[in-house]
Formats: sequence, C-alpha cells, structure tokens
Amino acid sequence: MLENIKSPDDVKRLSAAELVVLRDEIRKVIIDTVSKNGGHLASNLGLVEATLALHRCFDCPRDKIIFDVSHQSYAHKLITGRYERFGTLRKIGGISGFSSPAESEYDTVYAGHSGSSISTALGIAAANKRRGSDDFAVAVVGDGSFTNGMIYEAINNCAEHRDLNLIIVLNDNEMSISQNVGGISRYLSRVRTSGGYLSLKHTLDDFLVGIPLVGRHIARALKWIKDSFKHIFIRDTLFENLGIPYVGPVNGHDIGRLETVFAEAKRRGGVWLIHIVTKKGLGYAPAEQYPEKYHSVGPFDPEVGVVCGAERTFTSEFGRIMCELAESDESVCAVTGAMRDGTGLTRFSELYPDRYTDVGIAEEHAVAFCGGLALSGMKPTAAIYSTFSQRVYDQVLHDVSLQRSHVTLALDHCGIVSGDGVTHQGIFDAALFSSIPNVKIWSPETYAELESSMKSALAADNVCIVRYPKGSERVYDRSGFADLGEMTYLAPRGGSPDCVIVTYGVVAEEAVKAAQLLSEYRVGVLKLLKIYPLDKDAILPLLDGVGLVYVLEEGVMSGGIGEKLAALAAEHSGGARVVIRAVDNEYIPHGDRESLLRLFRLDSEQAADEIRSLLRGA
Amino acid sequence: MLENIKSPDDVKRLSAAELVVLRDEIRKVIIDTVSKNGGHLASNLGLVEATLALHRCFDCPRDKIIFDVSHQSYAHKLITGRYERFGTLRKIGGISGFSSPAESEYDTVYAGHSGSSISTALGIAAANKRRGSDDFAVAVVGDGSFTNGMIYEAINNCAEHRDLNLIIVLNDNEMSISQNVGGISRYLSRVRTSGGYLSLKHTLDDFLVGIPLVGRHIARALKWIKDSFKHIFIRDTLFENLGIPYVGPVNGHDIGRLETVFAEAKRRGGVWLIHIVTKKGLGYAPAEQYPEKYHSVGPFDPEVGVVCGAERTFTSEFGRIMCELAESDESVCAVTGAMRDGTGLTRFSELYPDRYTDVGIAEEHAVAFCGGLALSGMKPTAAIYSTFSQRVYDQVLHDVSLQRSHVTLALDHCGIVSGDGVTHQGIFDAALFSSIPNVKIWSPETYAELESSMKSALAADNVCIVRYPKGSERVYDRSGFADLGEMTYLAPRGGSPDCVIVTYGVVAEEAVKAAQLLSEYRVGVLKLLKIYPLDKDAILPLLDGVGLVYVLEEGVMSGGIGEKLAALAAEHSGGARVVIRAVDNEYIPHGDRESLLRLFRLDSEQAADEIRSLLRGA
Repeated sequence: MLENIKSPDDVKRLSAAELVVLRDEIRKVIIDTVSKNGGHLASNLGLVEATLALHRCFDCPRDKIIFDVSHQSYAHKLITGRYERFGTLRKIGGISGFSSPAESEYDTVYAGHSGSSISTALGIAAANKRRGSDDFAVAVVGDGSFTNGMIYEAINNCAEHRDLNLIIVLNDNEMSISQNVGGISRYLSRVRTSGGYLSLKHTLDDFLVGIPLVGRHIARALKWIKDSFKHIFIRDTLFENLGIPYVGPVNGHDIGRLETVFAEAKRRGGVWLIHIVTKKGLGYAPAEQYPEKYHSVGPFDPEVGVVCGAERTFTSEFGRIMCELAESDESVCAVTGAMRDGTGLTRFSELYPDRYTDVGIAEEHAVAFCGGLALSGMKPTAAIYSTFSQRVYDQVLHDVSLQRSHVTLALDHCGIVSGDGVTHQGIFDAALFSSIPNVKIWSPETYAELESSMKSALAADNVCIVRYPKGSERVYDRSGFADLGEMTYLAPRGGSPDCVIVTYGVVAEEAVKAAQLLSEYRVGVLKLLKIYPLDKDAILPLLDGVGLVYVLEEGVMSGGIGEKLAALAAEHSGGARVVIRAVDNEYIPHGDRESLLRLFRLDSEQAADEIRSLLRGA
Repeated sequence: MLENIKSPDDVKRLSAAELVVLRDEIRKVIIDTVSKNGGHLASNLGLVEATLALHRCFDCPRDKIIFDVSHQSYAHKLITGRYERFGTLRKIGGISGFSSPAESEYDTVYAGHSGSSISTALGIAAANKRRGSDDFAVAVVGDGSFTNGMIYEAINNCAEHRDLNLIIVLNDNEMSISQNVGGISRYLSRVRTSGGYLSLKHTLDDFLVGIPLVGRHIARALKWIKDSFKHIFIRDTLFENLGIPYVGPVNGHDIGRLETVFAEAKRRGGVWLIHIVTKKGLGYAPAEQYPEKYHSVGPFDPEVGVVCGAERTFTSEFGRIMCELAESDESVCAVTGAMRDGTGLTRFSELYPDRYTDVGIAEEHAVAFCGGLALSGMKPTAAIYSTFSQRVYDQVLHDVSLQRSHVTLALDHCGIVSGDGVTHQGIFDAALFSSIPNVKIWSPETYAELESSMKSALAADNVCIVRYPKGSERVYDRSGFADLGEMTYLAPRGGSPDCVIVTYGVVAEEAVKAAQLLSEYRVGVLKLLKIYPLDKDAILPLLDGVGLVYVLEEGVMSGGIGEKLAALAAEHSGGARVVIRAVDNEYIPHGDRESLLRLFRLDSEQAADEIRSLLRGA
C-alpha cells in the first residue's frame, strides 16, 4: 500500500481497515530498512499511529509538524513521498535519519537536539497569527525531552500566547534514551496509572467502537466530545498550573481516538498539550523488550536481533577506564545526560551506583551539577556527545572554569560522525571550548591515548576535556613516531622537512598516508594529543625553517586548533606558510566516514595533492 | 550595630528588637552605597530579612548558601565581615557587586547568570552526602529565574535525590528584572492570593506573636509546628507534582516566621522548596514603586531618585533604531529575555506590542523562538547582553544557522563592562559565534555605525550579530580615516607603514592614540566594522609589505578575530609578524573601564610601548 501513498492526502482517504494495513506495512519497512542500514528503531516504531492520525487531522505542509530531536520521523517520511528512496536511509546522498527540509517541504526544520521544538513551533505560530493565518504549528515531543530545560522556557512563554494555534503532542513512552529519570517522569507515571486514563478508556472506548470519525454519526460524536472533552480529559495539574490546557492521557496506538482528540483540539484552536501514551519499539518484540538497546542501532539480522558488547570502541574503552579509575579513587564519579549506554557507562552505573548520576537530557544541569560536586571534593566526569556539548558553553565557563572547579568532560562522537548527519557531527567542540579560560583539551587517537588522557585529566585541575571519536581505533603502522610528551612526531627521512603536517585525532591516519604519498618530498607529521593550549616550546622548534606547515583538522576552521597554530607561527616563525585544511563554514551531512572525509577534502589523497601543489608553487 | 557584626555568629546572638535595628541599618547602608557607587538596589533591599533569617538558622560557611545571579547578596556581604570595605563596592580592587569566593569564604561561587544555583547546590549536597556530612546547601532563587530552563532541569533531578540536604528558597518578588512573564509567574500569583497564604497568616501569626524562637516556649512551638507544618503549608501542586516538597508562601519580611520555617525544614532534612514573598525595593519608596528602574542603577541622589532617559547610549540608540526599522518594515520584531529596559526596548514594546516578546530569563528559548518566527516570514532581532548570549551557542547553531533562518542578535554590553565584574564581561561573543557557519558579525564603534550595522544585518540573511558596548560613544578625532566599505583605515603620513594596528569596537580609540604616541614610526590603524568573516581581499593589500601587524582586541585571544587575522597573514602574507594583544586566558574583575583597560594592557600607552619595543627588536 505504501507505493500508493504519495502524500498525506492519500492517507486521509483511507478507511479504518486500510489504515491498519498501512500501519503494519510502515512498521515492516522501518524494521527492514533499519536492520540493513542502521538507525533509530524503537522510537520510530512507537510513533506510527500518531503520525498517521496527525497527518489525517492537519494539513501539511501548510500546518507545520516539528518533531523534537526527529529520531521518530520515519513514518512521517514514508507517507510524505519518500517511500521509494527510503532504502537509502543514512547513506551518503540518501534519506536522512532525521528531519531534513532539503528532502521535503513536509520537514519543517533540521532537528537533532532535544527540547527546541516547542520554541520553534511557538515562533511559527506567532508569525502565523501576525500574518492573519490560522495555520497550526504542531510540536511532537518525547517525554524524555521534558527533562530538558528549553521545554519549560517555551511552555512558560506559551502561557502568554494562548490565542496562538499550537499543539504540543507529549509522546510519553516512559523512556528517554535510557530509562527516564526525575520528577517529571514520576509525575507522568502517576498520571498514566491514575483514574483519568482508565475512565477515559471506559467511556471513550465504548463510544468509539464501530463509529468512523467521518460518517453519519459525526455530528453526534462531536456533540458528545464537545460536552465531555473537558470533564473527562482534563485531569492534569502540572501543565494546567504552568498555564497550558492539557488533554490526556490518550492511547497513542489507537488511531481513531487520536484523531478524535487532535480534531477537537484543532476545532477549538489555541494552545493545547495532548498527552499520548505509546510503547517504544512496538511491533518488533526485541525492541519492545529492550528499548534502550534498540534506540539507535547498527545493521543487524532481524531474526536474531542486535548482538551487543563484542565490539571494542572508544566508548567501551571509556567505560572500562572509568571503572578502573573509580576503583582506585573514591572521589571519581560520573554524570550522563540520558546516555548511560551510549556513553559506555552501563557497567560503571552497576558497579558504582552511588557515584553515578543520570540527569536526563539536561546537559546544562549536568555540567553545573558537576561544578557543585567538585566544590565539595568529588572528581566528576560528565560524559556527553560532542554535538550535545554545544549546549553547555556557558556552564563550562560560568559554573566550572570561573570557579576553578576541577571537572572533566568526556566528549564522545567527536569529529565526523557517520550515519546521523548534520545535527550530530562533533566538529565544533575544540573551537568552542578553547575560548574559555583554563581549559585543557586532549584528543586521543588510540585507546592507549584515551587512557593516558583520562588519567592526565583527572590528575589536572579546572576544566579538562577529553574528546574521542565514534567507533573504533584505526589500525595502521604507527612505528616511527617519536614521543614528545603530549604529542608525537614522525620525522621524514633524509634531513629537515619541506613540509610538516600538523594534525590530531583519528584523521591522523590520513596525514600519515598523505606523507607516504608524498615520497618525492620530505614531509613530517606532528600529531597532537593535548591540542589546547598548544605547547609553544615543543612545537616551534619542529617548525623552525620549515617552508610549509599544513594543518589537517577534523573540525571547524574558524576558532579551531589550526588557527591557533597559525597565530603561533605568525608571531614567532617568520616566513613559514601555514595552510589549514578543515571544515570551513559548512555543515556535514549523513553518510559513511570515508565518503565524508573525501567530500570535505580531509582524506590522504586530496591532502597529498594539495601539499604537492603548494610545495611546487612555493 | 553593623560595626559589631563580624560574622553570622554575631547575628545569631541578637534579640528580635536588635534584629529590627540591624535590618534598618543594612537597608540604609545599601541605599547609601548604591546611590554613591551604583549597583543593584531593588533586589538587595528585598532580601534583607530573609538573609538574616538564613544566617540565624544555618551555619555558614559549613552550610553553603548559593545566591542565584547573586545580585541580592549585599546584606549577606554586610554580615559576613565586609561592612567596613563595603564603601568600595564595584570599584576596582573593591567589594564585588556579586558573590565572590575571592572575597570571603562565605561566598560559595561567583554567580551572575540565572538559573544555575540549584544545580550547583544539588552537586554540593550530593557530595556532602557521599562524604557522610549532614551539612546543608541552600539555593536562593528569585521567581524571575524560574523562567529559566536550568531550574527545571535541576528540580527534575532533585526529585531523584530527596534524601539530600538541600533547601531551595524561592524568593517571589513578583518581578524578574522586568515585569515577570509567563505561566510560572501567573501560577505564583495565584498561590500568593490563594487561601493558603491567608490561612497561614491567621494561624501562624496568632501563634508567633510574642513568642521568641529561642526561649522557654520553644518546645511547645516546635511541637505545634511539627503537627501543623504539613497541613497548613503544603498547598502547592506544581512543585509537588515535580517531586519537590513545597512550603509556603511565607512572608519574606517577617524574620521570626522565616526562622521558624527554615529551622523546621532543616530539622526534618532532605529537599525542600520554601516559597517566600518579598517586596523588591522595600525601604526606599522610589524603588518600591519602580523596581525595574531601580534594578541596576548608576550613582544617584537618594533625595531625588534616579533621573532617567537623558543620556544617549548605545542601548538607547539601539532602541531608537529598532523603532525606526519597525516603522518601515512590518516584519521587524524584537525579542528580549527579561531585559526590556536594559536593552532599550521599552519604547518599542509600547509602539509595537504585537511585535515585541519578553520571554523571561530564557535566552535559549528566545533564540529558537526567533528561529521559528523567521521560518514563518518575520525578521526577528533578539536583544541580549553579550554575557548571557553565552547560553545560546547551540540554539544559534542548531535552531537558526543550520535552518538558514534569518535572525539578528543584538548583543549589548560587549567588551569590557565596567562595574558588574567577572560574570558580566562581554569578551567571549566574537570567538564564540564566529565558529558557527554562516554567521556575520558587526562591531560598531559609533552610533552611526550601529545604525548602518543594524540595517546591514536586517538586509542580510542567516545569523547576523551586531555587538556594541555598554555606555556611550567615545568622543575623539576620527578625521583621516578612509572608508573602505565595512572597515576604515587611517594611513600614516609619509609612506608605507612600519606597523598596522588592527582593531574593532570602542577600543579603537586606544589604537588611534597609540599610533599618535608612536610619532617616530609610521603606524596605520585598520578599524574593522564587520569583524567576521574577515574581508580577505580588502585586508591583505593593506598588510602587504608591512613588517608588524599588531592586533588590539577587546575580547578573548583564543578563537578571537586576531587569530583569524594571523591565520590569514600566515597563509597569504609571508613575512608579516602578527602580534595579538587581547584578553588571554583571564577573567576580568569589576572596576572602571579605564583601570581595566590598563590592567589588561589594552590602553594606548602600553600598546604604544609594546609596538615600540617590537619595532626596535625587528
């Protein structure tokens, strides 16, 4: 049936029975595609019915649906003209695993960070009102995102704008990425199990059985809904107290019921928070049972399920190192933002539950909380993906660095991140955090360097950042590198170098291979482990008399380490030309690492070509 | 009496009658000192009684009090050994207007940004527990900060840690800096006027009359409190729903009643949110009447009050420009984070109420909301102080730049900010935001440049940032500067320059004066208006053949404009030495601008001396 669904209009025409077929087909395509390409499974399986109901009630793209984080938008993609290309999911040039306006006018924004959807939707709704339109903005937000502060900033502001056409769908699947934590989770749990849900079930279920939404009973149905809407649904106190009309909880897998509620909210207009309850992973038994494991997965055999734990990665190594550090030092503790498994801290959380805190998707709080822990004598490490650490600049500065507190940030998924795409790259952290006083940054290329970096960080003071990539250590011949403390140098044979390539992190492999490709020249490779602050006294002698310094940086150029090295050279090494190859004013899409390195000219071949032409021109 | 208060222990010994004398004396000192030195008046006057009560109930510095933003900590300073030095408030080397651990062990953290206090306090409380201590952490938070998302991230996490000794004092003065906005404000207003407050008043007032806290009736009082605490006080639903036990509202100017409540919460232990109601500006009639006007003030005559509106500043000019732009373009709109007056938008808010939004102290939401407005065709400008813009890196990146939405950020208080000190300097923004793709940054030095920059920004696309300083345009001779588009150049007389000073913003005055002091050399001055991205084609010819390029930058060095210029020179201008004078890995304390420029070697004399010695050495 999906073949015939070219747009949401085609979904609007389906009968209840046809919807069931479509629903099942969508789940099958999602499971098949994710098992081949990897992707977000559990969250997407949970939102199939709600997506269909939303598109039947609202008129996209005039009405705008904004998926928070957007790792639950596969069903939306499949019914908005992207079914045929869906096999290219997460491949370079293919369908993105997240919302992408470049793909479709039905995608409102690129989204991958938690908590911003209501703010965006409120802005759209406010602008709609100002231009006299009664179009709707709909934000679809998981309960996990309700641990994020932006949601409350936006809700607080919504209360001032009750006349705007804005629907907030709280998708309550009882999970963040990890098991949900905190007060809001407990609150939603109480609401789910309260009489409200049950009485709703009894009255509305009885009523809706056998009555299609559009049909001869519509008038009677609407009359009934109108009368009972308020009395049955509105039982919440939290959101009502925050100034937002609340409806729910509603069974998020009952398309008919969802449509009734969405349609009524739309008819009434204004701001509504509609609380729907869904099951993460619904339709694939292993994902229902282990939703955390099936949140984001690589390719797997659907018959067998995901096989875990075998692969050695920077993430698993980080977890191992943290456990060892905690064993030898009782003040070592770890904080994560809803990413226990994703940051490798599951074992740590089991071994040291008293020294482990999952704060929810609340990176800002995580860092300030670490600041407090440090003020009272603990040695906290906050483990955060690089892309999400973009939220904590001010907390690192104001709540840690300024206080001279000793906090370590372990940034996972640094550099180019395969698969997830434009919202999940780890290319800004070095530029970002190096502008803060007293920050030290290490960028290990190997597991051994990760371990030494973590030890250095925990033994140092103030803000220590250890950044490492997604996936595994690269395997290539590293012999010949001389150890110079917190950097290593691979000298060329036969005298002083024509060119030194300066690099750090796993792109160092490309630098070494570029030097090998340039056999007609003498090319040295300086690989930094501690990338900030630069060790002037160790670096300058290596560049002395070198005509060309070429920086190969798997991160942004503006504010990056290359610019700092260039400034060092411009002040102290008169004459050396410094050329930086980095990510320059661009966003990196989804795809595999090799393709992306080539696309952004960070691979050994293009580096070698550029150096050759620079040396010839010199 | 204040002369004899050397520490909180001295306050603990006072009788109720003596407390009244002390309270009045503290208010008098605050009014006198702020009227002479400037500072935060209304917020400090409101918290005098609560500060005394807190210090009588808790044992600082063992117990830690953390003031959110800390612009309400003057009374705390006066009773923790800083009365005699209080006349130096906000002067260089004197008492800071905010919490400062460098001053006193009674100050837990440097604090100036909203919403982080509960996170810090929770971290301290968690560490206390882990080391077996029953010390308390107390966060004192204004209701304005309850519009900030971090508060909710922290409260959500508190619900998981109910066994920690943590007191949150919600200081409800019905004001943010501007009139409070949003759902939380309305909620607190309902609680204040509800039966809860009244019944508390009747029963507890009756009971407490004539009974000192410490005395022979103590046992009976505690018994009574113990029995009725729960029934009378706990009437809230919002915070209870979020998982935090709530007590209140309590009259925040009744020391006895506050002590009763604080003591009982301490006796019970665990996490408590205590809601106190205070009056901003209490004790100085004009501040009571106009708390926004008296939030942060310069020196004034207490008999006359603050005289407003006469002075022409970058802030007032920004407000004027915005009104003019809005008049000619109906899509122009403005967003502020609780800083209507502080960002000069009061007149705009009156003329264009439909295009003006105060989101509360919620900068993250402000920027993402602007992103939404832009997606639906508006031209939003978010006016934020530079220091608070440190909160919005990810929103500028993820919710605006990535979407290619056209949003302007107007950053006030950029560069060195006199008075407020270490938490309020505007020195990071250029480094911070220039690492985001598609960002353009203007740094006007004059009102005319501010106007042209705002027009350029609104006519451009994607993220446009216009940054300008606190205070007024500098007055000096600018003749001789040649206009080169978005930069101006002052060529030296008599041939090609020995040195070019590159600068931007109001520190340009120092660069021009330094060039004048260096009359024995030919020194040019290049003043950038558009500071990012650098206009390579216009800049490089000016540096051609110049031996020394000296960058004078009123901002951080790491990631700053100077490093980008050095990288440009290192790639394209072989041989030019680039020396950057900027704020290097340091925090800037409070004081007057002139002293701070000297302290950080950004004044004309030290610049001239350094250039002279560099040229001699060359």
